[in-house]
Amino acid sequence: MNIRISNARILTMADGMKLTEGEIWIRGKRIAYIGDGTNADLACRGKERNRIVWDREIDAKRNLIMPGFKNAHTHSAMTFLRSYADDLPLQAWLNDRVFPMEAKLTGDDIRLLTKLAVLEYLTSGVTAFFDMYLTPETIAQAAEETGMRCVQTGAVNNFSQSTELVEEMYRKLNQEDSLNSYRIGFHAEYTCDKSLLERVSDLSHKYKAPVYTHNSETKREVEDCIERSGMTPTQYLDSLGLFDYGGGGYHCVWLNDTDIEIFKRRGMHVITNPASNLKLASGIAPIQRYVNAGLNVAVGTDGPASNNCLDMFREMFLVAGLSKYLEQDAAAMDADKVLYMATAGGAAAMGLHDCDMLAEGKYADLIMIDLAQPNMQPIHHITKNLVYSGSKQNVKMTMVNGEILYEDGSFHIGESPEVLYREAAKIVEGIKKAI
Amino acid sequence: MNIRISNARILTMADGMKLTEGEIWIRGKRIAYIGDGTNADLACRGKERNRIVWDREIDAKRNLIMPGFKNAHTHSAMTFLRSYADDLPLQAWLNDRVFPMEAKLTGDDIRLLTKLAVLEYLTSGVTAFFDMYLTPETIAQAAEETGMRCVQTGAVNNFSQSTELVEEMYRKLNQEDSLNSYRIGFHAEYTCDKSLLERVSDLSHKYKAPVYTHNSETKREVEDCIERSGMTPTQYLDSLGLFDYGGGGYHCVWLNDTDIEIFKRRGMHVITNPASNLKLASGIAPIQRYVNAGLNVAVGTDGPASNNCLDMFREMFLVAGLSKYLEQDAAAMDADKVLYMATAGGAAAMGLHDCDMLAEGKYADLIMIDLAQPNMQPIHHITKNLVYSGSKQNVKMTMVNGEILYEDGSFHIGESPEVLYREAAKIVEGIKKAI
Repeated sequence: MNIRISNARILTMADGMKLTEGEIWIRGKRIAYIGDGTNADLACRGKERNRIVWDREIDAKRNLIMPGFKNAHTHSAMTFLRSYADDLPLQAWLNDRVFPMEAKLTGDDIRLLTKLAVLEYLTSGVTAFFDMYLTPETIAQAAEETGMRCVQTGAVNNFSQSTELVEEMYRKLNQEDSLNSYRIGFHAEYTCDKSLLERVSDLSHKYKAPVYTHNSETKREVEDCIERSGMTPTQYLDSLGLFDYGGGGYHCVWLNDTDIEIFKRRGMHVITNPASNLKLASGIAPIQRYVNAGLNVAVGTDGPASNNCLDMFREMFLVAGLSKYLEQDAAAMDADKVLYMATAGGAAAMGLHDCDMLAEGKYADLIMIDLAQPNMQPIHHITKNLVYSGSKQNVKMTMVNGEILYEDGSFHIGESPEVLYREAAKIVEGIKKAI
Repeated sequence: MNIRISNARILTMADGMKLTEGEIWIRGKRIAYIGDGTNADLACRGKERNRIVWDREIDAKRNLIMPGFKNAHTHSAMTFLRSYADDLPLQAWLNDRVFPMEAKLTGDDIRLLTKLAVLEYLTSGVTAFFDMYLTPETIAQAAEETGMRCVQTGAVNNFSQSTELVEEMYRKLNQEDSLNSYRIGFHAEYTCDKSLLERVSDLSHKYKAPVYTHNSETKREVEDCIERSGMTPTQYLDSLGLFDYGGGGYHCVWLNDTDIEIFKRRGMHVITNPASNLKLASGIAPIQRYVNAGLNVAVGTDGPASNNCLDMFREMFLVAGLSKYLEQDAAAMDADKVLYMATAGGAAAMGLHDCDMLAEGKYADLIMIDLAQPNMQPIHHITKNLVYSGSKQNVKMTMVNGEILYEDGSFHIGESPEVLYREAAKIVEGIKKAI
């Protein structure tokens, strides 16, 4: 598809938070041109502008075009548990509700339930998600079939998956120019014995690849690890060589100064999930401290069973608001920094170096923000207001890999939402009967 | 207008969080019937069902009809400062940005800027707002002209308004069957000297009327009051007789046990503003403690200069999530309680006893929630999911006083949003030039 978007405010992220006005051209999967239109012919390799056949010409009506959000931590298929078990203590939630239901899921179920999450990502302007769940192959199918970009990470632990599967997926899902990619990872320190962690470390060294895992989500997790190993999770895992090639930690609510130092030295990414951390009473991650230490921070929703929604606007407000609260300083955590985390910061954490900003040659993973909504008016500072006032309601269009997957409330992912809702309801009913 | 809504899931709030399915009939401003349709003739005072001339018949397609949200604390016209001054320390924000701009506003400006807020309330399913700002008469006009329900409270302090104005507005704006009403109130303890507070107290006694004010928003406000008077703001104000007829406090972040006891004894309402309290680093209100003490809690957005949006979904998530964090208990603050606060709890605090729930004879202040959005699927617990996953995107229709003011993204308030946006931008430009 060749798509020309004109009359747009454009936030490329290539130049801080500077906005320009003009056009953006998409040819196939990639951005071919960004500018005011005058030097467009040159940019398009000598072809004359009026000889390009446009499949769509879109008047943005001075709405904002910006890079899509990167949901940097989620368990998408857990849509099936959304609002099934709220307001329970953590252990009762996991043992009585989540685990028995999860044990009944098939790979096909997970494909469908992941697509349900994709619908919601699109409404929130998410153009890529960093997923950790049970059946990587059917999750990759869901991404491929809907046209969504998906980075997965291994979920191996003592009870499910294996390092063999992680290696197989690492080799299979990291093809050039694909919507899917895969990072080495494991579930968490507290669900993996030492020999398993050592095998993951071997894999990381074999491929010189970074490693991702849940890290220091709860205070108890950290205390238990110290009791077992004499070290925090970060220190213990690092001592096994797991972060020799970098990687990242999901949650990172309870990192201490030594942990932060390790993250810094290893070039590791913090992936924060503030809504989930509140809802499960895990705590507030000290994001301002991480930023001060020079760490890259990304933002994720966590899975819909613990959140319950997949809404990057809510997460952005929380990163800013909770940091101000924690630092007792209304000037802490500038909103522009948070917007960067939710887009370019996430892309860096996920290894999506061709989707991080808008520039010629980058993949066309972008969104249109409706500024003609009351929550954006009057227009003073668009970028800050996105963080403090933005909502799904402002997402007018979501484009992944050059394809418009969501526009004006309608989905273009090859299946109707109603069919997906019906199928998801069937899966849930079936599981409820079976347990 | 006579409007018949059929095929609906209905949450009346008259029977806890129990959902029914059926029809709801609106005749003029009020609800005439709720039920499955079989006993409708009787309910409509003997008139035969097929003889009612319906102006609209709406198939709800099994979406949810519920009472509208009550935004129980706001300064609507501060829309003009939205995202004008974020990420600043509190005093710099107030003194360098808010006050100089505010001083230039005219009553007409405030009418228009209030309408801009009304647009946003409607997108968030808000059917009534509890406003405190500079020119009560033009705010009342904004409500009247848009068809919105507005309760105002006095903002009198040492620098603006007077007890005479408060009394005049109290008499003028409390007419039977009007969209407008008015409660006695003052800005805050720290902006009013003792003689002014005594005059407000006299007014409360004259009309046997409750009194509302900002109360214990910041720790410093409480400490300063103790230094001046030897008492907390609640104790000091109560000692002047201000709460002899009840009333309420906006924010209530820092109430101590004695304060809570006064609130309880006086039947006073806590009105919490969690997003604003985070963004301005004021703190987290201990709402679970207030609930345990048996206080009625309502929820407000505060003004758009400090929030920056007017989004009751975000506020609801925050009340639940922050309470779980504060209590270190994922089971704290059940979502159903929060949904009650944001609707019926708000109505109680605002004195809107005819708009609190859906029942025959009550005003038709109601909303339709789109359940056919991915963030609501699959459907397990609708009420809890509204709090944890709901968003403005789910508000399909907002009805106030029997009139549909917002439906499927379009506004029906007598003026186009574009004109209001343009006028608001003009006001802002004018003020910027003048300061």
